[in-house]
Amino acid sequence: MIQKVSGGVCAPKGFKANGVHCGIRKNKTKKDLALIVSECRATAAAVYTTNLVKGAPIAVTKAHIADGFAQAMICNSGNANTCNANGVEIAEGMSALVEQAIGVAAADVIVASTGVIGQPLSLEPIEGGMAELAAGLESGEVGSDNAATAIMTTDTVKKEVACTFEVDGVTCTLGGIAKGSGMIHPNMATMLVFLTTDAAISPAMLKKAILSDIQDSFHMMSVDGDTSTNDMLSIMANGLAGNAEITEEGEAFDAFCLGLQTVTNELCRMIAKDGEGATKLIECHVDGAADKGTARTVAKSVICSSLFKSAMYGADANWGRVLCAIGYSGADVDVSKIDVDFVSSNGMISVCRDGSGIPFSEEIAKEVLTADEVKVMIGLNSGEESAVAWGCDLTYDYVKINADYRT
Amino acid sequence: MIQKVSGGVCAPKGFKANGVHCGIRKNKTKKDLALIVSECRATAAAVYTTNLVKGAPIAVTKAHIADGFAQAMICNSGNANTCNANGVEIAEGMSALVEQAIGVAAADVIVASTGVIGQPLSLEPIEGGMAELAAGLESGEVGSDNAATAIMTTDTVKKEVACTFEVDGVTCTLGGIAKGSGMIHPNMATMLVFLTTDAAISPAMLKKAILSDIQDSFHMMSVDGDTSTNDMLSIMANGLAGNAEITEEGEAFDAFCLGLQTVTNELCRMIAKDGEGATKLIECHVDGAADKGTARTVAKSVICSSLFKSAMYGADANWGRVLCAIGYSGADVDVSKIDVDFVSSNGMISVCRDGSGIPFSEEIAKEVLTADEVKVMIGLNSGEESAVAWGCDLTYDYVKINADYRT
Repeated sequence: MIQKVSGGVCAPKGFKANGVHCGIRKNKTKKDLALIVSECRATAAAVYTTNLVKGAPIAVTKAHIADGFAQAMICNSGNANTCNANGVEIAEGMSALVEQAIGVAAADVIVASTGVIGQPLSLEPIEGGMAELAAGLESGEVGSDNAATAIMTTDTVKKEVACTFEVDGVTCTLGGIAKGSGMIHPNMATMLVFLTTDAAISPAMLKKAILSDIQDSFHMMSVDGDTSTNDMLSIMANGLAGNAEITEEGEAFDAFCLGLQTVTNELCRMIAKDGEGATKLIECHVDGAADKGTARTVAKSVICSSLFKSAMYGADANWGRVLCAIGYSGADVDVSKIDVDFVSSNGMISVCRDGSGIPFSEEIAKEVLTADEVKVMIGLNSGEESAVAWGCDLTYDYVKINADYRT
Repeated sequence: MIQKVSGGVCAPKGFKANGVHCGIRKNKTKKDLALIVSECRATAAAVYTTNLVKGAPIAVTKAHIADGFAQAMICNSGNANTCNANGVEIAEGMSALVEQAIGVAAADVIVASTGVIGQPLSLEPIEGGMAELAAGLESGEVGSDNAATAIMTTDTVKKEVACTFEVDGVTCTLGGIAKGSGMIHPNMATMLVFLTTDAAISPAMLKKAILSDIQDSFHMMSVDGDTSTNDMLSIMANGLAGNAEITEEGEAFDAFCLGLQTVTNELCRMIAKDGEGATKLIECHVDGAADKGTARTVAKSVICSSLFKSAMYGADANWGRVLCAIGYSGADVDVSKIDVDFVSSNGMISVCRDGSGIPFSEEIAKEVLTADEVKVMIGLNSGEESAVAWGCDLTYDYVKINADYRT
């Protein structure tokens, strides 16, 4: 029995968080430094961008959680600390500042940065902000809200979610915050996603759980086709819920994975819906695929098509672009069996059967596509597998936001 | 010695062309039907979209040139004749109408269509327009101009180019017209490109020449990452220049390929510069690559990045996005050796050396990037291979044009 609860990363027992403005950003009303801390050491795991150009914090985080444990996460926004000659030194410096401020060993700190690539990041503002950051650590909604707000860049809404689930009769909680709005086409991890849980789970099983989960969550989401240099998903599991540690596959592991999936899928929807300039969430549901890979490939190709995304912005039921995107996806499908429908809270409309157009009311189609969450349902009629992918429409504002991001 | 000449597809000896409004489009001022005819049978070759969803005209053209010969090309705009139950029948019908009107065997007709996918195409307007189309066939600039105009969809300028070259002391001419503005991410062929030449060349060598040429021309161009269902490049070589037929590799074949390259590269520049909503042409030059594949992959990834394209629209020297796009390209490069410069008719500016940013004047950078043709020069410093790719900026107008294309 899974239930959504409030509190984000502070919903699980034993986690506190905070976010402050330390001065990396010029705008004083925008927080730019976040900290999440567990009251005890936690098992930890992370996945990272596949981009060959990697932010310096990724190298440092990898080293710090190589032993499977961590206790705190620090993240700044406003500067990606990437393509800088002294990047690793700065990221290590951030960890050392955490140790000085709250006593968690620097080697147990997960470090992340997000913002402009290729501009030197100074430790000075971070050092100046640490006292306030540490003093304001809070459990519950306030702490998570402060951290979730501080990691935002072009995001227009904060992303946080949490749920409870049962492991062997013990109630566990898993929560997460995320940032991500543009440069979103994760390929291994995504954007910045920080997860916390009070479930007890071994490092190996924790890693297994997130590696499996991302195949159908963050890997299936795209805003603009650009894979960031700083993508990272990390999770800390501190075991304070009191369940017997999960050390192998089985019912307890499955329960944990379901809780994880609940949080990650909701974060995916939130990130896609808040895509830069987006006016609506697009969910692409593919079923009837011969195999899982085909279902994923087709769903991802459709939500990545600039032409389809532009049509969705215009509420134009241009299903030919759906077929076109399926056709160039590389998936092995029988075009003559494809069905396409559009569904939203405003209704549903069928537009394509057996790979060819069917007559439909443009008026109803417009109505269906005008909703702020639209599902495009693709039936391949060739098997039993299915997949879901999340994206958004392509709008004038995406261009506007990105035409002059640095200044 | 290669020289550009006027006359497009009618520049080579023995070719006539025309374009008329026959009524497929509602707008009577927009021509929608084009015809190109050689006075004798010509060797012919073509390459097609790799999209699994293919326009019906492609199946018909494939069958018609299977013997290596053709004599005419017919193309309509306003309707792609794709995803229609009776598509092949209609495309065969178009060929039959050509035979009736000008006596060229239907089996020697190359057929193409461009426009909306999934709406039935009626033969009626085409039949009605054939007499005018045939009667108005002209050689020289007028004929090519009429055909080039008739195949345009969202194109804002017609694309035509021609050049002369010497084969064994004989002057040959090769010309081309193209349409293409959106849904441009060719993968095998591109958009619609019709080439004509009076050089004598065997079907096998003609095919070899275009298959080799597209690797560094249309394959290296992208407007929006969407590969169309109707992409096609075709060429007819009627031999009227009088050179000894090219039947094997060697000097004569190389001369032919150089003429071909001159025309195709110029068409690539024209198509990219006229990309939907584009305000500028972006040329990405990669050198110092360890191998050709790496150079191509890097160049293509950069011009395909939505974030980089948006930055170019804003004349923002955000070179971090260039490194980001190189990083996720899949190419095996040493990031720490990468140099990046921007060059235009307004000057040049170096922004990155050895994978890290260097101080530069934002003012000069803005000036350089404000030109309507901008080159991004990437040095990988790891070898001798190079590649060029063509693209354009991503603008508000791209979205506007595609948000409601059908209505």
